[in-house]
Amino acid sequence: MTAAPDLPPLSLKKNEERRIRAGHLWVYSNEVDTAATPLKGFEPGQQAHLLAHNGKPLGTAYVNPGSLICARLVSRDPHYVLDRSLLVHRLKVALSLRERLFDQPYYRLVFGEADQLPGLVIDRYNEVCVVQVTTAGMEAVKAQLLEALDKVIHPAGVVLRADSSVRKLEGLETYQEVIGAVPDQVLVEEQGLKFAVSLQQGQKTGWFYDQRMNRARLANYVSGQRVLDVFSYVGAWGLQAAAAGAADVLCVDASAAAIDRIQANAASNGLADRVATLQGDAFEALGQLRAGQEKFDVVVLDPPAFIKRKKDTKSGEQAYHRLNQLGMQLLRRDGILVTASCSWQLPETQFRKILLQSSRHLDRSLQILERGHQAPDHPVHPAIAETDYLKALFCRVLPA
Amino acid sequence: MTAAPDLPPLSLKKNEERRIRAGHLWVYSNEVDTAATPLKGFEPGQQAHLLAHNGKPLGTAYVNPGSLICARLVSRDPHYVLDRSLLVHRLKVALSLRERLFDQPYYRLVFGEADQLPGLVIDRYNEVCVVQVTTAGMEAVKAQLLEALDKVIHPAGVVLRADSSVRKLEGLETYQEVIGAVPDQVLVEEQGLKFAVSLQQGQKTGWFYDQRMNRARLANYVSGQRVLDVFSYVGAWGLQAAAAGAADVLCVDASAAAIDRIQANAASNGLADRVATLQGDAFEALGQLRAGQEKFDVVVLDPPAFIKRKKDTKSGEQAYHRLNQLGMQLLRRDGILVTASCSWQLPETQFRKILLQSSRHLDRSLQILERGHQAPDHPVHPAIAETDYLKALFCRVLPA
Repeated sequence: MTAAPDLPPLSLKKNEERRIRAGHLWVYSNEVDTAATPLKGFEPGQQAHLLAHNGKPLGTAYVNPGSLICARLVSRDPHYVLDRSLLVHRLKVALSLRERLFDQPYYRLVFGEADQLPGLVIDRYNEVCVVQVTTAGMEAVKAQLLEALDKVIHPAGVVLRADSSVRKLEGLETYQEVIGAVPDQVLVEEQGLKFAVSLQQGQKTGWFYDQRMNRARLANYVSGQRVLDVFSYVGAWGLQAAAAGAADVLCVDASAAAIDRIQANAASNGLADRVATLQGDAFEALGQLRAGQEKFDVVVLDPPAFIKRKKDTKSGEQAYHRLNQLGMQLLRRDGILVTASCSWQLPETQFRKILLQSSRHLDRSLQILERGHQAPDHPVHPAIAETDYLKALFCRVLPA
Repeated sequence: MTAAPDLPPLSLKKNEERRIRAGHLWVYSNEVDTAATPLKGFEPGQQAHLLAHNGKPLGTAYVNPGSLICARLVSRDPHYVLDRSLLVHRLKVALSLRERLFDQPYYRLVFGEADQLPGLVIDRYNEVCVVQVTTAGMEAVKAQLLEALDKVIHPAGVVLRADSSVRKLEGLETYQEVIGAVPDQVLVEEQGLKFAVSLQQGQKTGWFYDQRMNRARLANYVSGQRVLDVFSYVGAWGLQAAAAGAADVLCVDASAAAIDRIQANAASNGLADRVATLQGDAFEALGQLRAGQEKFDVVVLDPPAFIKRKKDTKSGEQAYHRLNQLGMQLLRRDGILVTASCSWQLPETQFRKILLQSSRHLDRSLQILERGHQAPDHPVHPAIAETDYLKALFCRVLPA
């Protein structure tokens, strides 16, 4: 083994190593022994030897003195640093999982902490990668990261979407950068359908791979049915329903650009005759449909996170409550509600409680048939609650 | 609406109606206003009008004065009683879900409370049904139930397996009864494979439909791999792995009869050349394999419930810990652990904690790739924790 690299130490207070030893990767600023190793001695993104109070090594971490999460472990072996070589290794380990899972090169290649690469998300669209860097530590090795990515999958083009709001917590600027050849839009293949998405203008990295397995499950419930797809974005749920034999599908989205994209995707997949669109705020659109006494056999609710920060919990839970109640009211007598939440702060048990309350309020009875989660290219780190965020519940709604 | 049937009242203490109103179906004996409506006034299985303390009707329930759960709601509408007509209706509602979900008539037709039929489980094997009755209230309408079942699906034969140990809690005898034509063994079809199972001698109702979707997911992980299937029973996981392209499979079970069945099923499906068996206690067999330095790419652990009652929690958690640690030790460097628990008392969060501890103890790092649950013919009742029991976690185990 090579000698330990010459990194400054970062010492924890007594007993504060326990969570790290138990599997977590984060150090909070109040856990650091700042008398021994002042945080202000570190540059944002600088790497350090993380030490327990008794001096025992815990591994290598990168540090950001200005962030509440002031250090993230990048290796439990103190002989490694986060450099080109370690990045190549971690990308290869991440790639080998995805190649085992998927036939086509369309997937989330790296999911941050769960792939032992804190602060990094990479989505792959065949020859193009969309890279999100959200921490100073990962930003500091951006050049090595791009070299490593080139070595491991040699993409034709890379979109650096450094425009996430979480970068502010790390004191980082937001920007967007294109490297190499990136077309205006790429075609994503899912379950035999092709979707045109823009990697530079789209939401998040452009496409939501996380729901792919849940969308595949939808096929079992829609044959010959009337389907409502709310927060449709580019129509992934709705078009999958139409392809699986739904009699007709209505896609609702607030964005005019999304509506255009849904219509274009429906046409290019030969599904335009069974896919209609409605532009408008989801809550208002659902209210209108209800006022018009419209009914559906299957309602899909896949909203953005209503709880982004802890202080949103109450208002967010109310929004989930209202949305799901509206969805249930639009169902026929024996209907299927497919309802998702991507708020990690909302545990599945609490989400189910909200659904139960909504159903009781409407005097309906609920059977939870399936419980979907994020696809396996978004692995869950068992010690880090934030990595477990997506719930998609398939519910049968009956009269009580 | 017809007049309310002439049933005796069962009154709750003040505020004890809240849980029922919130969606639950059970009344515990300490919640009954026994001064107003003594429980000893009821015969086991007798039906009653359930009333809140203020006299407002909550619905119709069946009563068992000798059970901790002294009443279970069968209808929120007090005009209905649990009779042939209501049983026919509930069976039809249950059947319509399964017919929507499955092409073939092999499924759990009724899953107790979640199908609004407390105390009743029915598994369907095409023309044969295995019926489990676990409460005095359901036992009291057994004749009407068999009539209703005949009307709704007209089975050629019925096996009444009234041999579950939970019947003792209701003061019921255990017995087994065969009605009509029931062959010695039936062929269950799953994902293109056929399994011979005995409905009279097998475990539980003979086959475990609950894991079917999780077994289907296994296919993605086994191509060309060496697979270990522990608690194999009739070989469902192992044979599915072999059919999905596993290079070789070792099935472990303690029962000689199960080993014979695995071998017969492997042969009849043309998989005998890639399926080996090992008879023995799972913990001992895993220990032997470890001593022999055997390694596998994929290990499947699908044990019986280690936590059957609350007092088993500590010993049960230790058993899950030991088993999963053994499983991880038998994995190659980048292996897949598929690990299940059917103990409802073990929440998934706690199960994940046990896995995390096991992995940290062995200095491995864990990615949870997929989280499977019971199949949708075992719906979850959102108010009744006991109906949500099965967890099957697909984990990637890496060096730390």
